[in-house]
Parts: sequence; structure tokens; C-alpha cells
Amino acid sequence: MNLPLGYRYSAAYAGIRQMERDDVALIVSGVPASGAAVFTQNRVQAAPVKLCRQHLRVSRGQVGAILVNAGNANCATSTGDRVALAACRAVSKHLRLPVAQVLVASTGVIGVELDFNLIEKALPRLAAGLAEDRFGEVARAIMTTDCVPKEAFGEVKLRRGVVRFAGMTKGSGMIHPRMATTLGFVLTDANVPAVKLRPILKRAVERSYNRISVDGDTSTNDTVVLLANGCSGVRADPGEFGAFEEGVTTVMETLARQIARDGEGARKLITIDISGAPNDDAAGQIARAIANSPLVKTAIAGSDPNWGRILSAAGNAGVPFEPAKVDIVMQGTTVCRSGLAAPFSESDLKSRLDQPECSVELTIRGKRNGRARFWTCDLTEDYIRINASYRT
Amino acid sequence: MNLPLGYRYSAAYAGIRQMERDDVALIVSGVPASGAAVFTQNRVQAAPVKLCRQHLRVSRGQVGAILVNAGNANCATSTGDRVALAACRAVSKHLRLPVAQVLVASTGVIGVELDFNLIEKALPRLAAGLAEDRFGEVARAIMTTDCVPKEAFGEVKLRRGVVRFAGMTKGSGMIHPRMATTLGFVLTDANVPAVKLRPILKRAVERSYNRISVDGDTSTNDTVVLLANGCSGVRADPGEFGAFEEGVTTVMETLARQIARDGEGARKLITIDISGAPNDDAAGQIARAIANSPLVKTAIAGSDPNWGRILSAAGNAGVPFEPAKVDIVMQGTTVCRSGLAAPFSESDLKSRLDQPECSVELTIRGKRNGRARFWTCDLTEDYIRINASYRT
Repeated sequence: MNLPLGYRYSAAYAGIRQMERDDVALIVSGVPASGAAVFTQNRVQAAPVKLCRQHLRVSRGQVGAILVNAGNANCATSTGDRVALAACRAVSKHLRLPVAQVLVASTGVIGVELDFNLIEKALPRLAAGLAEDRFGEVARAIMTTDCVPKEAFGEVKLRRGVVRFAGMTKGSGMIHPRMATTLGFVLTDANVPAVKLRPILKRAVERSYNRISVDGDTSTNDTVVLLANGCSGVRADPGEFGAFEEGVTTVMETLARQIARDGEGARKLITIDISGAPNDDAAGQIARAIANSPLVKTAIAGSDPNWGRILSAAGNAGVPFEPAKVDIVMQGTTVCRSGLAAPFSESDLKSRLDQPECSVELTIRGKRNGRARFWTCDLTEDYIRINASYRT
Repeated sequence: MNLPLGYRYSAAYAGIRQMERDDVALIVSGVPASGAAVFTQNRVQAAPVKLCRQHLRVSRGQVGAILVNAGNANCATSTGDRVALAACRAVSKHLRLPVAQVLVASTGVIGVELDFNLIEKALPRLAAGLAEDRFGEVARAIMTTDCVPKEAFGEVKLRRGVVRFAGMTKGSGMIHPRMATTLGFVLTDANVPAVKLRPILKRAVERSYNRISVDGDTSTNDTVVLLANGCSGVRADPGEFGAFEEGVTTVMETLARQIARDGEGARKLITIDISGAPNDDAAGQIARAIANSPLVKTAIAGSDPNWGRILSAAGNAGVPFEPAKVDIVMQGTTVCRSGLAAPFSESDLKSRLDQPECSVELTIRGKRNGRARFWTCDLTEDYIRINASYRT
């Protein structure tokens, strides 16, 4: 799969992390790209989130570069706003871009001042290192507690030619649906105006990032950016925005699933399918309640087909349904029929739950057909181990 | 502290649990008591919950006996309603009580048929064993994953004399505010009509059981019953219901705190105080968001003063506030002032967070004074260990 045309990437170690591992990165578009972004809904918003909103407004959705750092969230810091702005200004100077065309994103610990000098010193190296084939280095530089970098690629054939998509994301803890979880950057060389990108990104986030949960917490820094720089020379026809949106959504769904799979301490990806709910939103609520239940997640960690916890979690979703009409299927085996235990081979199912991918399907029988799909991960001792000493 | 007059207790092993440990218990009032109860708000409700509602309606709040079993929730079972009713009938026959004056409560695994024969066989032993001094045996018989039995006692001096309170409760996982979490039984020998008990219980639950959280899950069986049998001969005057309610609330608050402290795998009781919120409900929402945050709970498990996670959890509560006006105090040490890091000795605070009781105070400075207090526990590897293999 080819990368979208017209983007260059660079990563470096600036000394923000204690461990010597790349912690700053640049994504640059050769020509200003149309850009859209969604941000955290947390009341506490990091300085870069606030600045990105402002820059996108001022630039009317034109983006030339994104500067990202890991190791420090630049949130709840007294110098936060100044540092974020200074960082954008420095990038704008190095790359000869209007400052409002520079976005900035940070991830890491909250409440520790971010030292602008570290960024300033790293910038010449970052700018000098920009290259078309360093996408993967950036994907690695933005990792925090992630075990693996997360990338996804795609292409869509439009009437005027092929457009390419490439996405990267990070995130492992503080992952919760209902918002643009974590950092995510999706790039395409399609020619699509910013005004069209925004609703497309919003819907794609709804079907991807808002459908995963690791621990029910939501970060102060969550940011997902979609850029379209038009470097393929392929303009989407009005009738082709649907196909373009599918391309974006597929990449973002793949990224989101990778986050759930790489949840802190997780050993299993759990796919939850709900059907027969009063409507799609209600199905989403039920899926979310199951995905966030520590009791369901620990049971699956232990390969225990404890469907009673799934039924109980569904009952807590705030959605009216008749328990006697509920069927639950785990890994293809019906474990609950009409709200009651169904006969199944415990040892057989247990061994199939030992696999790295588990499925839970909950169907409410009747005439309604609200559906939703969610992804989460199991909850293991390692989640605790990672988080009991993240800061120290 | 003396037990309330006029109650007898009994516990026995009926064979419902695999381990040979008392699993059925009776609480009997010598004369029919005024009774009130609150139940789970889960859409999936166990058979005993449904039957208790019906019996309290039919008997107009008169209760002679409560039968409790552990080891099986009698929920999502095809014979559940029949078994619950048969159990009440058997108790009513043994104790010569109208069947509607018998309540029944179950706790344990969901989705496994409860064998009425086991209860029937144990009943003669249970009835024969009834004694005034077996309160503690019942408190132990209703335990599931609890490490310790949970009891609380109190008395209040009214104009006509002293009335006594005794409460017991169980619960360790599937603990979440917003409802009558777990099983709880509070007995008093005061003379108070059922119609007065109901609002008193509702408010007391709001200030106790609805203020704790272990894992954010809510059981299908949660039941809290308050009985007042009048055996002290002391009738509360209209002006004394307030004092009576304080007595009930104090006992229930003590019970609720014990549940949080004994949360599955917990090593620490965490008390969360919010002040300066727009109103008390908003303060409660913020406290709940912090109490339910796995990231806050794991940080405290690791004695890590990671106040950024507390601020971030507060930001997710759905309550509008200005982060720059927030102060956070942990174990008496200010860690965040005006939304920013405050200087403190990390090693000193770390060692104080190693204690079995930790406090978190979050104040929003300004003119509003909404307050709330919540209790939760830390989240440790043992929570996972306990829950990954509960059923098997």
C-alpha cells in the first residue's frame, strides 16, 4: 500500500521523556491541506487542544504541519498556553508557514511544566530530518504506554483516480468512547475542501474512536486530525464523498481497534455486537455498559463464560428491555437463551475464550433492530501494574 | 452496645455454596415489624427482588421474617419465581406467618438454578436454631467474596426511652452508587409506622449506600431492608423522626463505608470530599467520577500522588467548572492549587498514601457551595484475580 502523496515526516528525541526514545515528531504537508479535527470533551482541556481549536478557526481549516510530543501532556501547567504557542511559532518559522497553519498535540503526564527549550533545540534536527518514508518513526514517537505502534492504510478509487489514506494513532489507557479518544492523525492526498471534511470526520469518529473503551477514563488531550492535501491531483466529485468517507472510516476503525487490542495490560480484543435494541443509540448504550464493566472484562481475562455479568451490565445501561427476550452468544456459542442459561460445554468454550480475539453478541428478540458494534479489551493484573506507578 | 429487642437470628449450611460454610440465614421479628426496602435499579432484577416488592405491597409494609441465601443469586433462572415463592411459603409455614410477611434475598452467581430442596431441608434446622444472640452468624452467612462480616450498631434516646439499631450488610464487588447496593438489613426496636420508614430509608440510602463505589457495576439483587418492630415499647413522637433518621443513617453510613473498605482486592479506603460545586448533586457527580476512575484508584494503590488523574476524572463528570479554580488536597497535602501543580514532598506524601485510609479533597474556589462525600477503595491486582475466576 502506498502512502498518500505530499507528506513528510520526522521524529527525534528532545529529552522530554526520561527514557531516550523519540518524543517529538513532525507531520508536514508540502502544500497546505484541508484539515478537520475533533477534541476531548473533558472539561479540563490541555493547552494544545485549546490552541488547535483557535488555529483551525483562524486558518479556516488550512493545515501545513502538526507538531506532536509524547512524555508530557502540557495540561494543568502554568506556562502551557505560552509553550504551545511558542512551539507553533517555532515550527512556522522553520517551515515558513503561517502560525495558524501549525497544529500541536501533546500526550503524557498531566501537571508537569513542558520545557519549550527542549522543543526549540530539537526543531532544527526535526526539520532537517523530514522525509516521505518516516511515517513509521512518527507512529513510534507518539507512543506512551502503547506496546505497539498503530498504523492503518487504505486507498479508494474515485472517477478521476486513486486517493490514498494513511493513519496513525496512539493510546492505551484513558480510553473511553463518547469522544475523540487519544491522538490520531489521518492523512489523505485526496482533494476535499475543509468544509466537507468536518462532517465526514465527525461521523467517522462516531463509528470508530467513539466505539472503543479500555478503562472508561477520558484524557484531557484527546485529538484526532484529518488532513486532505489534494496532492494526488484527484478531486472528489460531489457524488463521491460517500466513497471517500468509507475510506476514512475504514482507516479510523482499524486504528481504533488497534487501540482496544493494545489496551493497558490487555491480552484479548473483545468485539461486542448488540442487535434488537429500540434504536442504534440504545444499542450503543448497552454495548458501552458491557464494554465498561470491569466484571465482564475480568471474566473474559480469566476465560470464564460468566454471561450473567454480561446480562447484568446490559441491565445497567439505562435502556428498557425485557430480560426474558435476551440471547447471548460468546465466541459463537449460545450461553444464554431467553434470559436463561443455555446448555453448553464449559471446557470447550473456556478453551475458545483463551484466544486473542473474543466476541460477545447480545440480541434482544422482537421487532426492533437497533444495532451497535463496540471494541474493548480484557482487564488484567497488568493494567493495575502499569497504572499504579505511571508517574514515578 | 445492646441489640434491638425482639429479633432472633439463625444461620445454617444448606449446600448452596460448594464450600461448607453457612449459606442460608433467617432474621425473625417476634411481632410483625414495620418494613421498608429499596432495591436495585438494574433492568434485570432477580426473582427475590420482584417477590419482595410484591410482598411489601400486599402486607402494607409488615414484615415478620427475612430469609437470605448466599452462593446463588436466583437471577436469570427459569424456576426463579417459583423457588423464591416456595421459600417464602415454607418459612411462613414454619413460623406461622402470612406469606406476604416473609421477605427473601439472594446473592451469588447469576444464571444457575437455585434448588428449593436444599432450602426446604435446611429450614427446620434454621427455625430450631433461632436465637437472639446469633446476629453475627447471619452477618457471616450472607458474605460472598467479602473478607470480613460487616455490622454496625447504634442507639438513640427518644423522649419515651432508648431505641436500638443493628445493621448488617454484605458486598465487595458489583458495588456502585446510584442504588441500594448489595444486601443490607437494618433492624430497630423503635415503634415507627411503615409509611414513615419509607422516606427515611430512601434518604438514608442516598447518604450511605449511594455514596460508595467499588467497581461501577450494579448487581441484579441489591436490596436494603429496614425493619422497626416496636419491641422497645418506645414510640417516636412526630418531632423525633429526625433523631430516629439520624440513627438509621449513621448505622447505614458505617455499613456502607465497610463495604468500600472491603472492596474486592482493596487495601485502602478512600474518602473523597468535594466542595464548591454548583450544588450538592453536581458535587456528587464529580465525586462519583473520581471514585469510579480506574486510573485514580490504581494510582492510589501504588501510593502515587498523581493528582492530574483526579483533575482529569473531575473534568469528565459532566459538571461545568473552571479548572483554574480547582485545589486538590491528598492526605492533607495540597498537590494542586488553582489547577496547577503545587510544590510538595513526593516521598513524604508517598509514605502517607501507604496508609490504609486515604483522603482526596477537591475544592472549586468561588461562591458556590455544593458539597458531597464519597467512599471508594483502591484498585489492585487482587480485584482482577478474584474476578477472573469467580464462577469456576
